[in-house]
Amino acid sequence: MNKKRNVYLKMKTLKEAREILLKRFPVFGLPGSKMVSVPEAVGRGLAEPTFAGISSPNFHAAAMDGIAVKAQTTFGASETRPKELFVGKDAFYVNTGHVMPENTDAVIMIEYIIIKDESRVVIEAPAFPWQNVRKMGEDIVATELLFPQNHVITPYCVGALLSGGIFSVPVRKRPKVLIIPTGSELVDWHDFDLDQLKPGEVLESNSYVIGSLVESCGGIFSRHDRVMDDAQKIKNAVLDATGKDFQMVLIIGGSSAGSEDYAKEVITDLGEVLVHGVTMMPGKPVIIGAIDDKPVFGIPGYPVSAIIAFEQFVRPLIYSMLGQPDVERTTVQVEPTRKIASKLGVEEFLRVKLGEVSGRIVATPLPRGAGCITSITEADGIIRIPNHMEGLKDNEPVFAELLRPLSSVNNTIVVVGSHDNTLDVLADQLKARHGNLTLSSSHVGSMGGLMAIKRGVCHLAGSHLLDAEDGSYNISYIKRYIPQVNVKLVNLVIRDQGLIIQPSNPKGIKGIEDLGRGDISFINRQSGSGTRILLDYKLKQLGIDPSTIKGYEDEEFTHMSVAVAVLSGTVDVGLGIYAAAKALNLDFIPVVTEQYDLVIPKIHFESENIQILLETINTADFKKRVEALGGYSTEKMGEIISL
Amino acid sequence: MNKKRNVYLKMKTLKEAREILLKRFPVFGLPGSKMVSVPEAVGRGLAEPTFAGISSPNFHAAAMDGIAVKAQTTFGASETRPKELFVGKDAFYVNTGHVMPENTDAVIMIEYIIIKDESRVVIEAPAFPWQNVRKMGEDIVATELLFPQNHVITPYCVGALLSGGIFSVPVRKRPKVLIIPTGSELVDWHDFDLDQLKPGEVLESNSYVIGSLVESCGGIFSRHDRVMDDAQKIKNAVLDATGKDFQMVLIIGGSSAGSEDYAKEVITDLGEVLVHGVTMMPGKPVIIGAIDDKPVFGIPGYPVSAIIAFEQFVRPLIYSMLGQPDVERTTVQVEPTRKIASKLGVEEFLRVKLGEVSGRIVATPLPRGAGCITSITEADGIIRIPNHMEGLKDNEPVFAELLRPLSSVNNTIVVVGSHDNTLDVLADQLKARHGNLTLSSSHVGSMGGLMAIKRGVCHLAGSHLLDAEDGSYNISYIKRYIPQVNVKLVNLVIRDQGLIIQPSNPKGIKGIEDLGRGDISFINRQSGSGTRILLDYKLKQLGIDPSTIKGYEDEEFTHMSVAVAVLSGTVDVGLGIYAAAKALNLDFIPVVTEQYDLVIPKIHFESENIQILLETINTADFKKRVEALGGYSTEKMGEIISL
Repeated sequence: MNKKRNVYLKMKTLKEAREILLKRFPVFGLPGSKMVSVPEAVGRGLAEPTFAGISSPNFHAAAMDGIAVKAQTTFGASETRPKELFVGKDAFYVNTGHVMPENTDAVIMIEYIIIKDESRVVIEAPAFPWQNVRKMGEDIVATELLFPQNHVITPYCVGALLSGGIFSVPVRKRPKVLIIPTGSELVDWHDFDLDQLKPGEVLESNSYVIGSLVESCGGIFSRHDRVMDDAQKIKNAVLDATGKDFQMVLIIGGSSAGSEDYAKEVITDLGEVLVHGVTMMPGKPVIIGAIDDKPVFGIPGYPVSAIIAFEQFVRPLIYSMLGQPDVERTTVQVEPTRKIASKLGVEEFLRVKLGEVSGRIVATPLPRGAGCITSITEADGIIRIPNHMEGLKDNEPVFAELLRPLSSVNNTIVVVGSHDNTLDVLADQLKARHGNLTLSSSHVGSMGGLMAIKRGVCHLAGSHLLDAEDGSYNISYIKRYIPQVNVKLVNLVIRDQGLIIQPSNPKGIKGIEDLGRGDISFINRQSGSGTRILLDYKLKQLGIDPSTIKGYEDEEFTHMSVAVAVLSGTVDVGLGIYAAAKALNLDFIPVVTEQYDLVIPKIHFESENIQILLETINTADFKKRVEALGGYSTEKMGEIISL
Repeated sequence: MNKKRNVYLKMKTLKEAREILLKRFPVFGLPGSKMVSVPEAVGRGLAEPTFAGISSPNFHAAAMDGIAVKAQTTFGASETRPKELFVGKDAFYVNTGHVMPENTDAVIMIEYIIIKDESRVVIEAPAFPWQNVRKMGEDIVATELLFPQNHVITPYCVGALLSGGIFSVPVRKRPKVLIIPTGSELVDWHDFDLDQLKPGEVLESNSYVIGSLVESCGGIFSRHDRVMDDAQKIKNAVLDATGKDFQMVLIIGGSSAGSEDYAKEVITDLGEVLVHGVTMMPGKPVIIGAIDDKPVFGIPGYPVSAIIAFEQFVRPLIYSMLGQPDVERTTVQVEPTRKIASKLGVEEFLRVKLGEVSGRIVATPLPRGAGCITSITEADGIIRIPNHMEGLKDNEPVFAELLRPLSSVNNTIVVVGSHDNTLDVLADQLKARHGNLTLSSSHVGSMGGLMAIKRGVCHLAGSHLLDAEDGSYNISYIKRYIPQVNVKLVNLVIRDQGLIIQPSNPKGIKGIEDLGRGDISFINRQSGSGTRILLDYKLKQLGIDPSTIKGYEDEEFTHMSVAVAVLSGTVDVGLGIYAAAKALNLDFIPVVTEQYDLVIPKIHFESENIQILLETINTADFKKRVEALGGYSTEKMGEIISL
């Protein structure tokens, strides 16, 4: 099993690697072009400059409805000395767009004409030459340059081209990219039944993500069937491609230095490896190579690594082949909500959620693992932490590249705090009626939510903090921990908390009192979460010493992760909400019914977005959907709780 | 010919009209949906929320190559007290992505393992639980909300959906829009031979522009054959459409109040007109109507009016039907290069060229006529002058909506001054090698160029100002008019100036000395242009009184407009460059050979973009192309002229 391992060549920085790439493949605009009709050319870049075939207008045209005249014949006309003109002789009725009759050079608008009879009109003011006339060539002059080469045709351009007598244009060929997904663990969704997915099998998605990215920047992709981790098979696939009409080959997976990583070997054997390993994260194990003068990439298999490697190396090359500059994302100044350590000598692409709170844009880091595709689907932006920095400080402004328009960031409601499944339903209901509003929630527990409110980095927090003294929720915590913030408290749901256990309860667990049994393994929630506080309160009530509980030290951050730990058999039991147990078909032993509220600072409460949120909470639709989840009571939903 | 004219209903402001529209058609998300495979769903909005079908990973997976262990068994290992593990018993070789063997919960990286033999490995540090393991559900938990309804699927989302076991999704139906171009003057490019275009005939382009815009915001369009200006025929086309599966009908042309404008009549007869006339420019004569509860628009026929009407009314409605907010263009602060008067009570959409000069973005207004499609194809942005303002002051910052990315505006070389056809060639050559560089030139004459340099609103100016005293060009003007600016002077071309005349010279013109002849009509260039200065110098030399020249008062702004005036028969002769005469197959009588230079302030001269421009000028390619135009000498091209 322990085969020979590859080693990385000397790793390059991102900048060095890009320079090596673009120096080796300096093509700007692929040779050859394709004629397409003008309406079909939208979105394509011109392979040659385009010159107008005719002028527009291609005659002197009336620009108003009225009478065409020779301006000279109208000179001297005034209210006191009106002038009479003869229709057909020195006045000609015209409508907008008509050809100017011979020997006329001005149009008097119909509103300013007094019609005497069929043959005579009177004017009370002179016309000046060329008034209300669109002169020949006013818009476009035949032979003039309409658009330079590499200009990308927009819908507007269609108008200029057709008006200029150009009906088809030569456009740049789209670079053809072959994508070869490799990996013995991969299965393809096309020929697949979900129930048959075995442990160790992974749905192949990278080729479709990268293929879609290829298309979004103007290329065409072909997807090779999945290839096993076998150097010879991968080699055959690459060899076959380089002989064909592809401008580029991407080998996905196996680009690292492991014993089953063959991309480097294949490229080395067939051509040359220019770069193996870039000091960036995600995306480190990327390979840049050349076979028969064609670029061949080894793209890492982790989905976010694959995306970053594509965007940093493949995308600029595709654009260059199209005669286009690489896209530059808009950047915006943001404030991280917490300190982030980062490795010196590595450029990190940190995915963040963004939202505008009280005039500044706050950035909440998403999971940093390259395997988390949701860390980029949920991201609003990317903060690049350069090689020479060891991380970010909280609340020290940095720049983020935007993945969504700024207007969308400005219309994001930022929720930080305890996790509840109804927040997902709420996010969906908001999008159903208000497409421009996004609910972005980060799960840091109830106390974390209150701290986020204190630091002013969210619009509201979800919280279910039990006061053991009086059985109330949240009020005493608000008074104690954020007395300086004026907040409103709104109930979202009453929910069932309890023990999430394996189906049919194989360990015969009866309640919290069993957690200290030696044969039961438990998964805990993080300190500061409402659920942890609830557990500790119950343990104290029952006189159970936490140290007797197997797994008390292992923490998860959401109800769903607790449920997953039970489902996967890692543990026997965890404390969480009924909705999480139900979602994964697990059993549930109710422990308490608790109150889950939204804590909303008054400065945000009156804002339009929060008012829309509260209206949405109060709709019958929303209540119905929450009730359908199970384990929830909506009796107090939307009620304002007096503090 | 003088038929009954329509009248506008009470005109609405843009804001009022949009409110009327969106109140009458409040659809947010068309009912019904279509299932498409996930890769095909990119760019489409979800018709329903999408929940994960499986977890990802759906097993505990090794996140590194190495050995899988139970963390507990490693506790206590250190460099001084290494621990031996038995392969297959308490250590298992795994590669990234492998299923964690039963009863293991951590991976030790291969780099940190000492391999004793086939069956034994040694570790010198303990593993902590779950290190280098991707837990089941770490990325996606089965049943969790992946994306809310109306979420637009990106390439990244493809990864999350496939990984979550979702292979097809319900997407919103695309609204179907019927576009009916109307106008008896229209001809279609499909069945058309350019040489057959008769005066008065116009190539129909609006339906293709608007159709392309419909598609760019997610709709589908069908194009009805062109319909003559005939109320009954238009009515039939609309009636036919409203009975079919269209969500919207656009009648293009005839939306104004002229005697041949039938859109209002048609909509009134078949349904109701909600708005006729909006106080905006371009786009005033728009009609918003409803027939059988379907939106029907009268879209003005001038191309820019059609575009603005589409973007202000049709686009938001299409997005609303797709469950999406209307696009909000990014705005940026700009400084107009000159004062702009605008009509009170009308909201103007002023198209402007933008370029960053010395840290501020300068905005040069483009022609304001709604008939000029090039005023929007050349625009980088739109300044909206609100109803209550009478215009813009020069150099007083205002906001412009961007039509191109800001990065492109920042990479625009702004040339203001005299017009020469080689600037078009230069713009094209720049784009050929440097896709991110744009040359944007405004033609205001040589003196206008020097004034633009004085005001700091351009990077360079084209100039050919003759000093009659010593026969030099530009130097004495620079010293006299912009002594405070430190500039470099670079020759672009030597060119032939002369009389542009009808082919075969029907009036027998021999030279400037004939311009005073009574039977010859002339077209002049504007004051301050180098060509005008040349003319006046020549007239003085010859002792000709300008007032004896017919047309001396009529001015054009470019060589090409002068040539067009001759071509169209409006005048017999004008003064201009050989290239302009040649382009339109006109005859040419040489008058002088003159020097056309670029005046470049030193603060811009060293910039990267200007250096690229100068390099481009010095390429053999560029020289060759300029020489091919005719009437140019490139002997001094690129030479720096000492001041």
